[in-house]
Amino acid sequence: MKRYGSITGLRPEKAAYYKKLHAACWPGVQRQITECNIQNYSIFLKEIDGKLFLFSYFEYTGSDFDADMKKMAADPETQNWWKETDPCQKPLPDAMQKGEIWSMAEEVFHQD
Amino acid sequence: MKRYGSITGLRPEKAAYYKKLHAACWPGVQRQITECNIQNYSIFLKEIDGKLFLFSYFEYTGSDFDADMKKMAADPETQNWWKETDPCQKPLPDAMQKGEIWSMAEEVFHQD
Repeated sequence: MKRYGSITGLRPEKAAYYKKLHAACWPGVQRQITECNIQNYSIFLKEIDGKLFLFSYFEYTGSDFDADMKKMAADPETQNWWKETDPCQKPLPDAMQKGEIWSMAEEVFHQD
Repeated sequence: MKRYGSITGLRPEKAAYYKKLHAACWPGVQRQITECNIQNYSIFLKEIDGKLFLFSYFEYTGSDFDADMKKMAADPETQNWWKETDPCQKPLPDAMQKGEIWSMAEEVFHQD
């Protein structure tokens, strides 16, 4: 199992909508998350220096993360979900350069 | 079980030392974490807008979080550890006002 921590910005004017969406995530999206070997997935929100940021934590139990992420990206319902969530988020520069939403963070400590 | 996500700043000139400490956390500190009902504890590092931030995720399995945190704070070895780690960190304003290091983030999504 591998743990992933990642970060993105959240547009303040979209914060309420983002929270509303995630309080009742679509069942097809949740199914896809499970089928792509992601578990124990949390997203946290925090204001830093007057800007909003989202931090996500999840555990990946599969053997080919890139392949599973491609599988997720090919799922029509997930694509529709991202049409709702992408405009809420404001990627950090390193993610934006790669056309991605979330920037990976570095794990510096873990204790079971 | 309750999940906690929290955030603090990291002083760039102390980043290498903070990582070195956490790559070999003291056994007494780790024992105290377990005894205070904290498990699956990760800390991630990410640069945002030119500043370094730490994001922590852990799961609390006890029934009185405040009491367990007081117990941890009373442990001499943990106090010595914090003498090393506190000067590395740069609390956000809301934590600083309370004399704390870490600011709690809001959980906006979870999927098992």
